[in-house]
Amino acid sequence: MTHGTQPTPAPSGTPELPPEPAVPGRLSPAEARGLFRAGFVTPTAGYSDGFAQANLLIVPKEQAFDVLLFAQRNLKACPVLGVLDAGETSSELLAGGDIRTDVPRYTVYEDGVLVDSPTDLNAVWRDDLVTFILGCSFSFEAALREGDVPVAHIEQGVNVPMFRTNRECAPAGAMAGPLVVSMRPIPASQVADAVRITSRYPAVHGAPVHVGDPAALGIADLSRPDFGDPVRIPEGTVPVFWACGVTPQAAVMRSKPALAIGHAPGHMLITDLKNSALQLP
Amino acid sequence: MTHGTQPTPAPSGTPELPPEPAVPGRLSPAEARGLFRAGFVTPTAGYSDGFAQANLLIVPKEQAFDVLLFAQRNLKACPVLGVLDAGETSSELLAGGDIRTDVPRYTVYEDGVLVDSPTDLNAVWRDDLVTFILGCSFSFEAALREGDVPVAHIEQGVNVPMFRTNRECAPAGAMAGPLVVSMRPIPASQVADAVRITSRYPAVHGAPVHVGDPAALGIADLSRPDFGDPVRIPEGTVPVFWACGVTPQAAVMRSKPALAIGHAPGHMLITDLKNSALQLP
Repeated sequence: MTHGTQPTPAPSGTPELPPEPAVPGRLSPAEARGLFRAGFVTPTAGYSDGFAQANLLIVPKEQAFDVLLFAQRNLKACPVLGVLDAGETSSELLAGGDIRTDVPRYTVYEDGVLVDSPTDLNAVWRDDLVTFILGCSFSFEAALREGDVPVAHIEQGVNVPMFRTNRECAPAGAMAGPLVVSMRPIPASQVADAVRITSRYPAVHGAPVHVGDPAALGIADLSRPDFGDPVRIPEGTVPVFWACGVTPQAAVMRSKPALAIGHAPGHMLITDLKNSALQLP
Repeated sequence: MTHGTQPTPAPSGTPELPPEPAVPGRLSPAEARGLFRAGFVTPTAGYSDGFAQANLLIVPKEQAFDVLLFAQRNLKACPVLGVLDAGETSSELLAGGDIRTDVPRYTVYEDGVLVDSPTDLNAVWRDDLVTFILGCSFSFEAALREGDVPVAHIEQGVNVPMFRTNRECAPAGAMAGPLVVSMRPIPASQVADAVRITSRYPAVHGAPVHVGDPAALGIADLSRPDFGDPVRIPEGTVPVFWACGVTPQAAVMRSKPALAIGHAPGHMLITDLKNSALQLP
């Protein structure tokens, strides 16, 4: 039981951790999920190139209609890629996988309060839990970079900055809350390209909800995001705002279900869905 | 109480019917809904040019999660434009309107059996009813014609032919059933255009699910549709199949809820949503 052959030491407490992959982008989604299932914990940016990574939201069946209706009413913030039936732990989005173990790190909320960040859900799983798999901006960021539109936070090696806005989402039952947006500074000459490219990915937040003028969204200071990291805003860029997958998580937490589960920030579910399959037209 | 000034006699039994409009395409959605609310009964093709017409599906709250989940799992057949809360009778899709009166004719099912086709829902409305407003192919047909792609059934003055296929939808709770498709014969040189144009309208069935080869869908005879009318297939055209809004209705009926309500075929809800707002990117 030695960790000596691993390039990066893994968190302690887990025996026989698999080694960090040399080229994470070349792992198939099933290989990446297997690695996390075996206990390897890492943010998933850069894993399984070309495949959609997804946000996770798990609630008791009792809350599931409100969550699904909230998603339908706020599609840009809550693009649903798949829903597992109550108690179901796998689907064609994670073929052969297990939603309880295949995400590197989870967050567990009780009555709306974060109580744990486990690396599997074996201790908390219940047969009445419904799993929502929600699209994530990683997919359109790959398309932006493929289209030679720079993505500043990736170039700067930080998380995307996210902001609560003064826009309320359309409520659904107990689910209500502000729209949360992510911000990417885009060169003025490429704003049109950024709109055009991301419009083609409605299943992963789609076109921006706002271009320029952060004050109109109630954002006082771009250098102080509510979530994620500040990003340096290059000369000649315009702040462009996309609806963000934190929106439904914030609304769920506010509705204070007895139990709610998400993924830890940046520790996403890697699905078998190709980004190219999400592109329209 | 005379109908003598009306260009087309209205169904008997309703006093003081408003006259048929001279140019139905120029009515605003609110004007058209007002006409139907006042008792005028007509198929809605050709009404309120440029605005989205929609399928209606109303079920008790008890069935609503299954319906919404079925829609999410079969997005191409069940594109949800809006959901009204239990008991709610209006929304921003029909501003100032009333879902119980603003569709020219409804269908009422009890335990999965058609029991009535009333012109309003006043006698059957209940406070636990949840209304689903679903996109309809009228919107993309307008875009096809704008793009000079001929739509044969419109040119021939008949309803679109629809077929049950051998493909099962992804089930959700009590909701299950075959995918139903509509068929439009498209000139071989314009099939690519038809795909390109309808791909841009994911909220109204989107791209075709199948091009050519009806036998592969289990369709033995294109001249004998399961719903709608046969259409003459012009020389040099290829049968192109789109997911159809009859799909969710068929699945609901099969699940036999105590009460379910739809629109009568061709008698749609005219919404305030512009077709142009449905176009991506």
